[in-house]
Amino acid sequence: MNQRVNPLANIRVVLCRPIYGGNVGSICRVMANMGLADLVLVNPVKIDWQDAQKMACAAQEILAARRETSSLEEALADCVLVAGTTARMGLYRQHSASPRETAPLVLEAAVRGKAALLFGPEDNGLDNTELALCNRLIQIPSTGEYRSLNISHAVMICAYEIFLASGVFEAVGEKSPPADTRTKEQMFKMWEKALLEIGFMEPDKAQHMMLGVRRIFARGAFSADDVRILMGIARQASWCAGQSAGKAEK
Amino acid sequence: MNQRVNPLANIRVVLCRPIYGGNVGSICRVMANMGLADLVLVNPVKIDWQDAQKMACAAQEILAARRETSSLEEALADCVLVAGTTARMGLYRQHSASPRETAPLVLEAAVRGKAALLFGPEDNGLDNTELALCNRLIQIPSTGEYRSLNISHAVMICAYEIFLASGVFEAVGEKSPPADTRTKEQMFKMWEKALLEIGFMEPDKAQHMMLGVRRIFARGAFSADDVRILMGIARQASWCAGQSAGKAEK
Repeated sequence: MNQRVNPLANIRVVLCRPIYGGNVGSICRVMANMGLADLVLVNPVKIDWQDAQKMACAAQEILAARRETSSLEEALADCVLVAGTTARMGLYRQHSASPRETAPLVLEAAVRGKAALLFGPEDNGLDNTELALCNRLIQIPSTGEYRSLNISHAVMICAYEIFLASGVFEAVGEKSPPADTRTKEQMFKMWEKALLEIGFMEPDKAQHMMLGVRRIFARGAFSADDVRILMGIARQASWCAGQSAGKAEK
Repeated sequence: MNQRVNPLANIRVVLCRPIYGGNVGSICRVMANMGLADLVLVNPVKIDWQDAQKMACAAQEILAARRETSSLEEALADCVLVAGTTARMGLYRQHSASPRETAPLVLEAAVRGKAALLFGPEDNGLDNTELALCNRLIQIPSTGEYRSLNISHAVMICAYEIFLASGVFEAVGEKSPPADTRTKEQMFKMWEKALLEIGFMEPDKAQHMMLGVRRIFARGAFSADDVRILMGIARQASWCAGQSAGKAEK
C-alpha cells in the first residue's frame, strides 16, 4: 500500500435519503471515532439539525463539513468503489460479503481514489436502482430474529472493520514488560520464605503448598511491575513475621 | 464447546449508572441484533423510558425484561467472568485487550456460567472501584483524536465480535453456484461469434480482442446464473446480426 496516502481520508460515507437528525449526528461521532471525515447526504428528508448536533458530540466539524446532493449519482460520481449495505437478501443482493471481507477491498480502492460506503434510509434501505450503482454489497451479520440495525450502528460496524484493517490503530500496550522466569522464581522463593515465616504452612507441607501458589499465580501473565508488587508483599510479610517473633521473645 | 449450551444466552449486558433513555433503548436493539437478551441496569440515574422505548424499536421485549439493581456487586454476583470497557488508559487499565481478543474468552466463560459485559456511565465511564470487579478489560479501538464512543456503539462492537466468534451467524450464500470453466468457455465462444457477427471486430483481430474481453470478464467471479445471462446476450446479438444481414440482402 502506498505509504503516502491515508486511505481513511479517501473514504466517503454516503447517506441516501436519511430521515433522523439524531442518526446523522451519531454517524458523525462514529466517523470521528474511526478516522473518517467525508460525509455526503443525498436528498435528506426533513432532518432535525438540533438533534444532529446533540448526537454528534465532539464531531461537530464533520457535521458542519457535510455536503448535500440531489442525486445519488452526483454523490458517487468521483468514486472508484461503491460498497452498499443491505439487510435484506433478494435476487440482486445475493453477492454480498461481510464487513470484514469487504474492508480490505475498500481500503485498496481508497489508496487509488475515492471509495464510498453507501447506506439507505432508516425505513426501507436502498432500493434496486440505488443498489445497481454499487460495486460491492455488504451484509452485516445479525440474528435471523432481528436483522434491522439502527443506521448509525451499521455505519459503526463497517467503519470499525475498515479502521482495524487500515492498521492505523495500535493498541496501547503495557508499559511494563512481561516478567521473565528468573524474576518470577525469585518471587516464588520470597513467597515461600514469607508463607513459612507467617505460619501459613509448615515446612514439611511447603513443597505441596507452593505448587498450589504457583498454579494460582500462573493463571495470569504477570508484568515486571506485577512481580515487583508481589515481591514487596512477600518482603513485608517476612518483616512483619520477624517483628511479631521479636515481640513474642520479649 | 459444549453443544447443548447457547453461550449467547449466558451473556449479560450490565450498564452501570446509565443516564440517557435513548442509549438504553438503542442498546436493547443492538442486543436483539446480536443475539443477546439479558440486560441489567445498576442505579439508573433518571432514565426517560419513552426515549428508551422509541430507540428500542422491535427490541421492546428486552427492554421490558431488564432488571435493576442498587449495587454493581449484586448485578455481577453470579457471573464467572466480568469484562469491563474503558476508553482511558490509566495505571489500572493497562492490561486491556481488544474486543476481538476478548470475545472468545467471554464465550468460553459463558459456556460454563454467566458472563458480564460491563459499561460505565456516558459521561465518565467506570471508576476504579468498579474496574476492580472486572476480570478482563476491553479497550475499543478508536482514533487518538476522538476516543469516546457513544455507549450503544461500544456495546455494538463488543456484541458484534462475540456474535461473530460464536459462529451462530451463517452468511447467506449465493443460490447460484459459481460457473465452471467449461461453461465459461462456451460463453466466450458465443461472445466471439456474436462480436464477429455484429461487426464489433474483424476476424484477423478476433484473437487479440477476445483477450481483452476475457480480461474484463475475469474481474468478477461469475455465478452460473451470470453466465446464462451473458450467453443470452451473445445469442441475441447473433440473432440480431443474422436479421440485419437478411434485411441487407433483401
